[in-house]
Amino acid sequence: MPYFDAASAAPLHPVARQALQASLDEGWADPARLHREGRRARLLLDAAREAAAEAVECRPDELVFTPSGTQAIHTGISGALAGRRRVGRRLVVSSVEHSAVLHAAAAWEAAGGSVTEVGVDRYGAVSPDAYAAELGTTTALACLQSANHEVGTEQPVREVAEACRAAGVPLLVDAAQSLAWGPVDGHWSLLTGSAHKWGGPAGVGLLAVRKGVRFAPQGPADERESGRSAGFENIPAIVAAAASLRAVRAEAADEAVRLRALVDRIRARVPELVPDVEVVGDPVRRLPHVVTFSCLYVDGETLLHELDRAGFSVSSGSSCTSSTLIPSHVLRAMGVLSEGNVRVSLPSSSGTSGTSGTSEEDVDRFLEVLPGLVAGVRERFGAPATTSASAVSPEVSESLVVDALGRRCPIPVIELAKVIGDVPVGGTVTVLSDDEAARLDIPAWCGMRGQEYVGERGAERGAAYVVRRLR
Amino acid sequence: MPYFDAASAAPLHPVARQALQASLDEGWADPARLHREGRRARLLLDAAREAAAEAVECRPDELVFTPSGTQAIHTGISGALAGRRRVGRRLVVSSVEHSAVLHAAAAWEAAGGSVTEVGVDRYGAVSPDAYAAELGTTTALACLQSANHEVGTEQPVREVAEACRAAGVPLLVDAAQSLAWGPVDGHWSLLTGSAHKWGGPAGVGLLAVRKGVRFAPQGPADERESGRSAGFENIPAIVAAAASLRAVRAEAADEAVRLRALVDRIRARVPELVPDVEVVGDPVRRLPHVVTFSCLYVDGETLLHELDRAGFSVSSGSSCTSSTLIPSHVLRAMGVLSEGNVRVSLPSSSGTSGTSGTSEEDVDRFLEVLPGLVAGVRERFGAPATTSASAVSPEVSESLVVDALGRRCPIPVIELAKVIGDVPVGGTVTVLSDDEAARLDIPAWCGMRGQEYVGERGAERGAAYVVRRLR
Repeated sequence: MPYFDAASAAPLHPVARQALQASLDEGWADPARLHREGRRARLLLDAAREAAAEAVECRPDELVFTPSGTQAIHTGISGALAGRRRVGRRLVVSSVEHSAVLHAAAAWEAAGGSVTEVGVDRYGAVSPDAYAAELGTTTALACLQSANHEVGTEQPVREVAEACRAAGVPLLVDAAQSLAWGPVDGHWSLLTGSAHKWGGPAGVGLLAVRKGVRFAPQGPADERESGRSAGFENIPAIVAAAASLRAVRAEAADEAVRLRALVDRIRARVPELVPDVEVVGDPVRRLPHVVTFSCLYVDGETLLHELDRAGFSVSSGSSCTSSTLIPSHVLRAMGVLSEGNVRVSLPSSSGTSGTSGTSEEDVDRFLEVLPGLVAGVRERFGAPATTSASAVSPEVSESLVVDALGRRCPIPVIELAKVIGDVPVGGTVTVLSDDEAARLDIPAWCGMRGQEYVGERGAERGAAYVVRRLR
Repeated sequence: MPYFDAASAAPLHPVARQALQASLDEGWADPARLHREGRRARLLLDAAREAAAEAVECRPDELVFTPSGTQAIHTGISGALAGRRRVGRRLVVSSVEHSAVLHAAAAWEAAGGSVTEVGVDRYGAVSPDAYAAELGTTTALACLQSANHEVGTEQPVREVAEACRAAGVPLLVDAAQSLAWGPVDGHWSLLTGSAHKWGGPAGVGLLAVRKGVRFAPQGPADERESGRSAGFENIPAIVAAAASLRAVRAEAADEAVRLRALVDRIRARVPELVPDVEVVGDPVRRLPHVVTFSCLYVDGETLLHELDRAGFSVSSGSSCTSSTLIPSHVLRAMGVLSEGNVRVSLPSSSGTSGTSGTSEEDVDRFLEVLPGLVAGVRERFGAPATTSASAVSPEVSESLVVDALGRRCPIPVIELAKVIGDVPVGGTVTVLSDDEAARLDIPAWCGMRGQEYVGERGAERGAAYVVRRLR
């Protein structure tokens, strides 16, 4: 049963499991104690810190372990902002950061700070120049992910780090998605990571703060982890995390080549096999194991369930999945189609220990079942056939209004597609919708269909989206 | 090699280990995902929450898991204070709370709140009346531990909870030390615990907030754990924590009887075997597995090392251990001797799985080696013989000044003891000392020796402690 959601969490690496077992016996005591059990725990913690620091390319005394990547981000951002309070209160982030970063930014704003979001291009990448332009004299901290968690696009971290350096602004890099593949290139000031993304156990994040970076930990004092992470150290998990980081790095070069070929195959084949699909994210500057695409006229949650029933575990940034009513902020920032969104992230194999990662056969089978599943979902939703937009209806009227109020994605887009042939070329269709996804998906549909998106008007309820038929 | 520091951390319970192993395979995925791995993880998390809630005696939806007991306390306190911001800004705590509580209180004070510390008696317990008297109309939150972590004294939680209820003030109970032994008696509003204290793994704390208690989580938003604990859920460890809590509870009644007998033996025998020892903490209302005593004229760190070399792992609240220069705040609040302090906390055995806990033989051997080790340390520090205070020196002068500036405990007290015989009955000895422990230990010495502690005067450096010879 292929698991294609490694970017959410990866199964425990065999090396992590071995290290965890061993250190459950050796590393359970309080490392602050002077007795032999405490000293033994301290030795394990020190060794893990050295191994992790080597992988991150920092000094051991610059790195602390936190209970999660999320907490590493929260602590790193709040500590760096407080450390540079005198410089200013501005925080610069990209618009496609992980929600942990954006939530920390929102908390900072609520506490009276200011936040500047740097937009991204259609591939999800910031422009170094645009980023640099936002670094003023009052910026306390800048944040940029090493690579995007939803679409796999790598960010120009080295260039942005240079710009930050020139402006005297510390840069925090959220490296959660990329640490398995290698250290972060460029002169970052703070760096965060999360062990369960690289085959380590849950319960371990890491935060590196370069010497010389002003840093003032917030919250109640706690002497552990240099005062930067409160609570009893989770040494067995930390040891396992460090061991698995080292192990995945040893396998990274080979696995990257192998998975990149599989991802390229998906990127190339899906649009050939499935009509009306948009593959998103940078085709070249990307993580080796992540590929994301969106399917027009498809409900993301239904497609996920169908894939799950067929044995494939994927995730989705569609608004129609899980509890949220709004599409992923990443897809919104990129301005790409969000409906029927599927993220495929392939787990690595750990060659030395015989765990099978993603195989060619898994990917082949995925490509085999996907077209039928998408077609089935579209049929169920009454989606128009791919060619319907150019058909001319017998009853032509200059403009039409489609009331899709109260209908969730992908219905508003489907309704639009059904009637576009009912207006003449040059005529307009106005879609009334109160579904947040429509704001993203109607313009995206226009792009895919060669129709003109005129714009959005206010309406009594929801919004009115105006589309002009061009062909 | 007997490990007598269970109150710091207990070795992993065999049941916890089994549960951890099993859930490493089943519980590594993201429980927010809709695919089968995510659903399986969610089921494990839900089951663990139910088991833990049952042990804590609350509803499952009142309980969240945190990455540590410390974070449960920090989150519980900050959330409850924020939830009752309109009522007032006063936080009431006992003076012998765990440092996690006192650090959260200090952070609250630094942020403009006010903190009232309720003192304790010589056994380390608060008086319910004294506690109740501090609950005014502007108190947002009260905190009281179920039992003290350093001396084992149980607090009158039920009575204090009643007083809090009458005053309309929510009570947060830090139950870290007692949850292994049973649920907390009384109508608490919030409760915190820490798995590694009950034989669970590190990396798991719990926070229960009763329905109806106003609670506003602080810090960046995060949808997991009811918005009360940020970061990826550590499900394997949570499952192990819940399983071991259930397991230790099943064994608690028998183990309590067994360990209480061993502790009573230590409490009775140590003062018989070792001269000039003060056993501290309530003799009856106490945790079954903790006993603490202090040895006059002894350096805590040296004694710890000697015990460690003899195979016994204990901890100490002496100032002369670890990096701190001040004695434990618990011993200070109790007003008892802090030098040569030793806490013995006995691990439970897990009968069903054959792990050996503390045996009678371990305790016997401890009682066998302790007197010689204490005598050795005293000799090394040049401590006076037990009877020296009543000897009369040939050169009698009405008052003497002993300069112990720059000397660390136990030297100031040893110097005092050496010269008390050099003044006549009614005469005084003034000890100049800049060691924080002297403030506690000189009055304690007077109590043990039947001499009068006159008081403390300011001095150019440190303080001057005046003692009058009475016998």
